[in-house]
Amino acid sequence: MRVGGKHYRTVWMEDHVVYFIEQNLLPFEFRIQQSLHYRQTCEALRTMQVRGAGAIGALSGFAMAQAFLEAKEHNDSSLIEKARVEIESTRPTARNLFYAVEKVHSAGLVSSAMAVGEAQSVANKDAEDCRKIGEYGNSLIRDGFRIETHCNAGWLAFVDYGTALSPLYLAHSEGKDIFVFVDETRPRSQGARLTAWELHEEGIPHTIIADNAGAWLMAGGKVDMMITGADRIAANGDTANKIGTFEKALAARALGIPFYIAAPLSTFDLNCKTGKDIPIEERSQEEVLYAEGPDENGDMRKIRLASPGSGAFNPAFDVTPAGLISGIITEKGIISATRDGVMSVTREP
Amino acid sequence: MRVGGKHYRTVWMEDHVVYFIEQNLLPFEFRIQQSLHYRQTCEALRTMQVRGAGAIGALSGFAMAQAFLEAKEHNDSSLIEKARVEIESTRPTARNLFYAVEKVHSAGLVSSAMAVGEAQSVANKDAEDCRKIGEYGNSLIRDGFRIETHCNAGWLAFVDYGTALSPLYLAHSEGKDIFVFVDETRPRSQGARLTAWELHEEGIPHTIIADNAGAWLMAGGKVDMMITGADRIAANGDTANKIGTFEKALAARALGIPFYIAAPLSTFDLNCKTGKDIPIEERSQEEVLYAEGPDENGDMRKIRLASPGSGAFNPAFDVTPAGLISGIITEKGIISATRDGVMSVTREP
Repeated sequence: MRVGGKHYRTVWMEDHVVYFIEQNLLPFEFRIQQSLHYRQTCEALRTMQVRGAGAIGALSGFAMAQAFLEAKEHNDSSLIEKARVEIESTRPTARNLFYAVEKVHSAGLVSSAMAVGEAQSVANKDAEDCRKIGEYGNSLIRDGFRIETHCNAGWLAFVDYGTALSPLYLAHSEGKDIFVFVDETRPRSQGARLTAWELHEEGIPHTIIADNAGAWLMAGGKVDMMITGADRIAANGDTANKIGTFEKALAARALGIPFYIAAPLSTFDLNCKTGKDIPIEERSQEEVLYAEGPDENGDMRKIRLASPGSGAFNPAFDVTPAGLISGIITEKGIISATRDGVMSVTREP
Repeated sequence: MRVGGKHYRTVWMEDHVVYFIEQNLLPFEFRIQQSLHYRQTCEALRTMQVRGAGAIGALSGFAMAQAFLEAKEHNDSSLIEKARVEIESTRPTARNLFYAVEKVHSAGLVSSAMAVGEAQSVANKDAEDCRKIGEYGNSLIRDGFRIETHCNAGWLAFVDYGTALSPLYLAHSEGKDIFVFVDETRPRSQGARLTAWELHEEGIPHTIIADNAGAWLMAGGKVDMMITGADRIAANGDTANKIGTFEKALAARALGIPFYIAAPLSTFDLNCKTGKDIPIEERSQEEVLYAEGPDENGDMRKIRLASPGSGAFNPAFDVTPAGLISGIITEKGIISATRDGVMSVTREP
């Protein structure tokens, strides 16, 4: 997608060099980093300079390809297995990472050129899947639609296009008049920071709202549909996503607003029969009690938001029951999720 | 209520001096201010050093009483009407202010001592009404209850006790084991700042949550009831309160959690037949885009929370339909609100 009018992917590889957008600095600074060695690339994964399922997958594939190139250069094949362990330990809960490393590793056993080719293909497939999600999702968007979204499910989490925002990018590029309400998404403000930044760079009209304002806007007839991404989807369609997604889905159902999830099929975890099987991460209370951002001089400051004597409870995700979801937009079509565990594809490619 | 173990009201008058808790500094600094002249008291109202319906009412009554004392001292009765206009212009939308000024003004026409007495009685009545709300509300709270609240409807907004928190204070003082989930209440964080501070000072177990976490906690069986205050209540029971109240009420209804409003009868505006007649204030986008608080050195800093290119939409209140409200806890009993505009008092004093 575009930044300052120029097209970028979040991660890419040219010759032996890996490039990536340093996401820890966004939205206050836009910087491209480069990594010459697989170890530097591991560091980018570990420090979350690159985050989001698809982007992590692609970057870890590139790291594995770099390891093959370095093994060849130094004539040291022992480096390959060592690198694989290192890469896999950077983000041990990221499923896309293991998938990408496995694919690139297999190809690399033939040649390091094959490893690089496979890594490029992993990245390209991620972008292409998201582009298709955009096509299916766009079929739901009518001219004049006002769409609410929660958290960041844009291209920064993938190689390009993103999931929940991909249909919006396509709708806008086709000339549809759309407007986006961006939930700020406390406590980490991914909406106010990343989603708002993405939409601004693409020139899509939008405004940030406090998470509290969602239902009130829906009740006022100001929201035509809601789309969010997903962190993990159970076999019956129950969907884990950023905390607050469930509350929005409840409000949308009560107020008659269609509520869609957009995610690649790789987000489905068929080992989880229902949402009850999806573990929910609790994160540090610091995220709720403090906030960081630039002051009027541009210096980054960390401030206390809450009363000093009190603590916070910070569940990071929630589970939206399939019955509240109008459909799950995937790269293969839009799936209707039902409470009884039966999923049906309502639009074939 | 207590601060550091000592009992305080938010505003009070001794001899000719008005005292008040400087609320703009809370929760990071606790300071009592004193005001020797009605003009200083007007300044405290204007700069929101004292805020909240009941506290504004009491303080404006004290200001009017000070004006009578000053008129007598300087033997200048023209000062009285001038002062009345000044006081009334400090917070022109605060209904309690006009009510208190009128009462104290009438009494002052007899003598300045009567004015002071009437001002004390206005303040005492506010505290007493809130204490009664606590008694009625407490009858709903069982031992072991976990209660969610939104925004600040504690004693800081009144002379003492508060509304939504008054039943919690009483339940706790009676030895009931209660726990409070405090919605941080973006964008102004009144929950994380004021409600959390009040509960901490009273020693009531509580934790702050991101507003996004409410429905998820309810679904997990962690919330037994929800109580909030009200800014204005229409004749049919539709209730305007801080933005996000409506979304919580929707979630509570969907998940079978009782949802109560606590407010004195003076909050009812019978000129509004339904919630549609209540005007909703939009506030500055700055409240969403920026946050203020102390840094690690205790210096107050203002930081940017959101992406620099984006704006925000900031409706400050919403309206919860009567049909979502289990009951309205008043100083006269608990009122059942119904959609058809009929209200019935379910518990008489």
